[in-house]
Amino acid sequence: MVQHREDCLRLDASDPLAPLREQFALPEGVIYLDGNSLGARPKASLARAQQVVSQEWGEQLIRSWNDAGWFALPRTLGNRVARLIGAADDEVVVTDSTSINLFKVLAAALRQQQQDAPGRRVIVSERSNFPTDLYMAEGLTRLLGDFGSAGWTLRLIDDPAQLASALDDQVAVVMLTHVHYQTGHLYDMAAVTAQVHQHGALMVWDLAHSAGAVPVDLNGANADYAIGCTYKYLNGGPGSPAFLWVPKRLQGRFEQPLSGWWGHARPFAMEPGYQPSGDVGRFLCGTQGIVSMSLVGCGLDIFEQTSMAALRQKSLALTSLFINLVETRCAGYPLQLITPRDPARRGSQVSFTHPQGFAVMQALIERGVIGDYREPQIMRFGFTPLYTRYQDVWDAVSILLDLLQTEGWNQERFHRRGAVT
Amino acid sequence: MVQHREDCLRLDASDPLAPLREQFALPEGVIYLDGNSLGARPKASLARAQQVVSQEWGEQLIRSWNDAGWFALPRTLGNRVARLIGAADDEVVVTDSTSINLFKVLAAALRQQQQDAPGRRVIVSERSNFPTDLYMAEGLTRLLGDFGSAGWTLRLIDDPAQLASALDDQVAVVMLTHVHYQTGHLYDMAAVTAQVHQHGALMVWDLAHSAGAVPVDLNGANADYAIGCTYKYLNGGPGSPAFLWVPKRLQGRFEQPLSGWWGHARPFAMEPGYQPSGDVGRFLCGTQGIVSMSLVGCGLDIFEQTSMAALRQKSLALTSLFINLVETRCAGYPLQLITPRDPARRGSQVSFTHPQGFAVMQALIERGVIGDYREPQIMRFGFTPLYTRYQDVWDAVSILLDLLQTEGWNQERFHRRGAVT
Repeated sequence: MVQHREDCLRLDASDPLAPLREQFALPEGVIYLDGNSLGARPKASLARAQQVVSQEWGEQLIRSWNDAGWFALPRTLGNRVARLIGAADDEVVVTDSTSINLFKVLAAALRQQQQDAPGRRVIVSERSNFPTDLYMAEGLTRLLGDFGSAGWTLRLIDDPAQLASALDDQVAVVMLTHVHYQTGHLYDMAAVTAQVHQHGALMVWDLAHSAGAVPVDLNGANADYAIGCTYKYLNGGPGSPAFLWVPKRLQGRFEQPLSGWWGHARPFAMEPGYQPSGDVGRFLCGTQGIVSMSLVGCGLDIFEQTSMAALRQKSLALTSLFINLVETRCAGYPLQLITPRDPARRGSQVSFTHPQGFAVMQALIERGVIGDYREPQIMRFGFTPLYTRYQDVWDAVSILLDLLQTEGWNQERFHRRGAVT
Repeated sequence: MVQHREDCLRLDASDPLAPLREQFALPEGVIYLDGNSLGARPKASLARAQQVVSQEWGEQLIRSWNDAGWFALPRTLGNRVARLIGAADDEVVVTDSTSINLFKVLAAALRQQQQDAPGRRVIVSERSNFPTDLYMAEGLTRLLGDFGSAGWTLRLIDDPAQLASALDDQVAVVMLTHVHYQTGHLYDMAAVTAQVHQHGALMVWDLAHSAGAVPVDLNGANADYAIGCTYKYLNGGPGSPAFLWVPKRLQGRFEQPLSGWWGHARPFAMEPGYQPSGDVGRFLCGTQGIVSMSLVGCGLDIFEQTSMAALRQKSLALTSLFINLVETRCAGYPLQLITPRDPARRGSQVSFTHPQGFAVMQALIERGVIGDYREPQIMRFGFTPLYTRYQDVWDAVSILLDLLQTEGWNQERFHRRGAVT
C-alpha cells in the first residue's frame, strides 16, 4: 500500500522495467502522461533520422529503395508489430493513416458481406468512438448511397452494454475501438468477437489505444480485421504511419478500393490492369513517407526487450495507483473517475472529469504534468510503463492536489486561449 | 553549339542558377539524373530533421501540434506549392500519397458528374499512364460496380493524339498525367482542358512529373482537380507526402469519401457526425507523418529563390543538349529517342530505348551515372535544373559512349540480379 512518496521510490527501485526509461529522451521537469496521444521519443530515433536523411537519402539516393529496404518497410515493420498484437508473420503492414486503413478494411468487410449475406447493411459502432472511425464509415456508406446502393446505416450504441441489443441479422460489420479513447474502457476482445460472429457479422477492431498498451490476441480472438496506430504507445514519432491486420484466412479473398501500385502483385511490371497481391500486401496503396516510417523501428526495438505481459503488469499497477491516490489525496474535489475500476476492463489510461477540466489540465501542463483534455470535461492521463515511474504518479497527484487547493478555477483564465490539445 | 566539354564548363560558369546547386548534398562521383524519381537532398533537411525529432517531438512533445505548427502543415506547405503550379492560396493541401489523393479527387469528380450529368460513366486516361492512376480509378469504379452501380468504364487511349476521338457524351472525367513518366511528353494543359470541357467532362491532372519541373498554371487552364508529388522535382525526401489541388469554385461543393477527422469543419469538437470543412480542408483525412512532411519545406525554400520560368529555360537547355549529344556522339548505337523533340511538348526528362536498356542502365549506375529503367527497354534521365550542370550532361554522355564502345551487352550479366529500380 502506497502512502508516501518513498513507497513509490521503493517500487521504482525494484521495477524490472525501470532501465527501459533510459532509452527515452524525456524533457527535464516534465511528467509525461500523454503517451496515449503522442508517445515519447526513443533516444535512438535521432541517430536513425540522421542516417535515413543523410546517408540513405542523401548518399544512396534512389538505390535505397532496395538497398536500405525502404520498399519492404511496410512488411518488415508489420511483422514486428504483429508480435505485439497476436498476429502472425505476413498478416500486418505498416502504412498510411489509421483513418485510411479503416476505410480499406471496412470496404473489404462490406464486400465480404455483400457476397456472403447481401441483405446486411448496418455497421454497428459506439457513438463516443473516436470520431474519425465514424466519419470514415460515413464516408464509405455515403459514397455507396450516392451511387445508388441504398440502406447503409450506422447504428451507434451509447454504452458497451447496449452491444447485445444492437446485434441482429441486418448487421454487416461491428467496428469498435478496443480501448476507448476517452474512458480507457477495454473490451473483452474474444468474447465480443464471438458474440458478433454468432450474429453473422464481421468484427473490425481499432487498436489505436491498445497496441503496445495492453496484450492483444487477434488470432486468438478470431477477429476479422484490425487497424491501429504507431505514434501513441508504440512511440513511432508524430503522425508515424498506421498499421493494418488481415488474418491469413481472409487475405487474398477480398479487395480494398484504394488499390494503388504498392498493392499490385507485380508493382514494377507497370501493367495497366490491377492484379492484387495475393497476401496482405493488397492493402498497401502508394509510396510511403520513409523518414517517418523508419523511426517506427526505434520504438519497436524497445518493446523487443520486454514482453506485453510484463508491461501490462506495470501498467495496471500504475493506473491503479493513480486512481487510488487521486481518490484519496484529492478527496473532496469534484473529480469523477470515468475509467473502469476493474483492471480487466481498463486500458493503460485513466480519465477523470472535472467541471473545469479544460482549465485544470492547462494548469497541470503549465506545472509540467502533461496529460490532455477531451470534450466534454475529460482530463485524460496515459501511463506508458516503458518510461513512467511510480514516483511520477505520486508527483503528478501532488501537483494536481496543490492546484486544486490553490486555484479558484475561473474558466476565464484559460478558455480565452482557445488552445487545441 | 556545344562541341567540347569546355563549352559546357562555360555554360555552367554563366548559369545564373548555378549557385543553387550548393544547397544540395550530392554524393561524390555521382551524376544524378534521377530527380524525376527521387529528388536529391537539400542540405538543410538534415538540420530540419534533427530539429523536428529532437526538439519538436522530443522536447515539446504533444504541444508541437500547435506550437510548432504541425497541425497546420498541410495547409502552410500547400500554399507554398500553390505558387509553383498556378494555384491560389487555400487551394492546395500537402497530405497522404499521390494515389490516395487521386482517389479523393476522382470520387469528388464522379459525384459532381453524378449530380450534373448522371449518364456519364466513362473515365478516359492513357493506357501507358503511370499504372497507379489507372489502378486507383479501377479501385473506385469496381467498388461502385460491386455495390450495384453499373456501367463504369475506363477508356484508355494508346497515344495522346487519340484523345479527341475518345471524348463523347459518355465521358465523366478525363484523367491525364501532365508529363508522361516514361516519355516525358508534356500535354498542353490549357488546350486539353478546354477540349475536355467542350465535351462536358471534368479534367483531373496528375502533376507528379510537372510540379517543380515545368511551369504549370492550373487556374489559367481552368482545370478541375489536380494531384501531385513532392518527392521528385520538389526534393521533399523519400515518399514525402503528396499534394492535391481543388479550385475555389469547386471547394465546398463535393465531398470525398476518405472523410477523416482532419477534414471535419471542427475536428477537435469530437462530434459523432461528419461535417466537411467548407474549403480544401475537406480533402484532408487523418494524422500525417510529421517528420516526413516537415522536410518538404526545405525543398520549397530553394524554389523560392528562383522562378519556374528560369528553371524551365535551363531545363530545356539541359534536355536539348542531352538529346543532341547522345544522338551525335553515340550515333550508330541502337538508341531511340522517345521524348518529344519539340521543347514545348517536353517535360524535364529525356528517355531513350535500347534493346538492352536494363543492362545499359545498370552499367551506367555502376559508373556513377544514375538514371533509371522502366519497362519496356526505357532508359530514363531526369534533369533537375536546380542542381544539374551542363558539364554533368557532357560527362554522362561520355560515360554512356564509353560503355557502348566497350561492353558486349550480354543481358545475362545484369538480368540475373533481378534488381528493382
